Amino acid sequence: MKLTILGCYAATPRTITNPTSQVLEIKNRMFLIDCGEGTQVQLRKNKIKFSSINHIFISHLHGDHFYGLVGLISTFMLLNRQTDLHIHGPKGIKEIILLQLKYSNSYTGYNLYFHELSATKSEIIFEDEKVIVKTIPLKHRIYTNGFLFQEKIGERKLNIDEVQKHNIETCYFQNIKNGKDITLDNGTIIPNAKLTFDPPKPKSYAFCSDTMYDETIIPIIQNADILYHETTFLETEADKAQKTMHSTAKEAAKIAQLANIKHLILGHYSTRYDNIELFKEEAQTIFENVTLADDGKTFDFN
Amino acid sequence: MKLTILGCYAATPRTITNPTSQVLEIKNRMFLIDCGEGTQVQLRKNKIKFSSINHIFISHLHGDHFYGLVGLISTFMLLNRQTDLHIHGPKGIKEIILLQLKYSNSYTGYNLYFHELSATKSEIIFEDEKVIVKTIPLKHRIYTNGFLFQEKIGERKLNIDEVQKHNIETCYFQNIKNGKDITLDNGTIIPNAKLTFDPPKPKSYAFCSDTMYDETIIPIIQNADILYHETTFLETEADKAQKTMHSTAKEAAKIAQLANIKHLILGHYSTRYDNIELFKEEAQTIFENVTLADDGKTFDFN
Repeated sequence: MKLTILGCYAATPRTITNPTSQVLEIKNRMFLIDCGEGTQVQLRKNKIKFSSINHIFISHLHGDHFYGLVGLISTFMLLNRQTDLHIHGPKGIKEIILLQLKYSNSYTGYNLYFHELSATKSEIIFEDEKVIVKTIPLKHRIYTNGFLFQEKIGERKLNIDEVQKHNIETCYFQNIKNGKDITLDNGTIIPNAKLTFDPPKPKSYAFCSDTMYDETIIPIIQNADILYHETTFLETEADKAQKTMHSTAKEAAKIAQLANIKHLILGHYSTRYDNIELFKEEAQTIFENVTLADDGKTFDFN
Repeated sequence: MKLTILGCYAATPRTITNPTSQVLEIKNRMFLIDCGEGTQVQLRKNKIKFSSINHIFISHLHGDHFYGLVGLISTFMLLNRQTDLHIHGPKGIKEIILLQLKYSNSYTGYNLYFHELSATKSEIIFEDEKVIVKTIPLKHRIYTNGFLFQEKIGERKLNIDEVQKHNIETCYFQNIKNGKDITLDNGTIIPNAKLTFDPPKPKSYAFCSDTMYDETIIPIIQNADILYHETTFLETEADKAQKTMHSTAKEAAKIAQLANIKHLILGHYSTRYDNIELFKEEAQTIFENVTLADDGKTFDFN
């Protein structure tokens, strides 16, 4: 699992900082999370293969989280994309995108599917054989979801030494990986636990931006390996955080602590702060394992 | 008159090139022309004072000419803009912008006026005491206008030596600048032509992007000082130019020649070309005074 931060600053794109967008590579799936203005340029700068993105998740319809989406959809057209593209986002996103395509008299050569969200309870919005994605309902000024990306438990790993010792043929390997015991020709049953190792523990990534401090998300993100939690303000601006329905660094850390997260990543800094290290310092008064997101930063969780 | 090219490449923003946007400073007015994705960042990079822009002119509703507009409008909100903002652009632009503001539950603290265009003949869309702006109806795949910016003829300049020679009091200066003759106390009439010099010749700038070769624009732009004319393709791709309703460098030059333009600026290059010098070479086979636009380039016409 690998996370690339394309942008992690609040409100408005600047010369050196970008609004929210991330690419999560999980089990060879490439998910784009939020798509602020300039995301397509950030994708290029970070050498992300555009065409591998088939699912885009939009947290909410504030500009710093989706104004780059229509441009990316248009660029996919120009690049002659053929593969289906799925957009998961709040109700309204389809109307906004299609209106712009209509006025530009443009038609995507690929199928463009909108999966509009309006539920206020966590729901599964994507699932295949390896990954599951659930919403994390957040509390912000408009309808907002975070997203929980979970790897599914994989196949068991063959214990090659044991398998060879019993001369088991390769045609049985898949059954063994699936957890089956093996009966040898002489009638001996070899239990699966002897022939295999546990699969790697599945990882999970929770993306929460933007939201005010909200303990109701804890059961949803409980025990996640990584939590990206917005922290627009420091405690010195707690009043502004409350007024604009954002979180402080301390609040983000408290959520990480209560949800038993392994690794907290902070982002969505207000551009009023020149020194983002202060966010880390404030969070670490509550929760030790904190890293600051920054544009172009990559986290490899393998 | 000063022109700053924020972006002049076709189709899609890239790491090093930007879609169409320009700032024209004319008689202390600051006009933004087109607003592709990333324009607000380009404004910052080129140190343009955001707040001085009160009028934005959008040629057409293809993304590379206006996807940055909603972000700029939002940033003006965040910057707590109070001054009126006027958007001149094709019918539909109001619906597109307001739909996005509606879903983000945002309200501008300033008055936002939309002046939607649908005429197919040239019309005056802005006029004050110093500047006039007219549309240049263009032929493209969707409804498109170029814009002709004309300085109005200014006041006559005082000939200080002559004025002092006749001991004319300062309270008459404005009348003299306005072209009036002066009668001295002894009854002598001093004709205005003796007291003044001609004002500087008013300048004009014609912006034409995007369009196929179209001689019907010639009477509108005739004798303009500067013509920015798109040239997406070279003659080697004339078939693509025709199919997509764009111009070649040679065609842009032919328009400049026929319209008796003083200075031709080329831009809107297809990103397929690595060497944009070829556009200049091709245009100069027809018209000598050609300059290539490039992102961040400034033209000072004073």
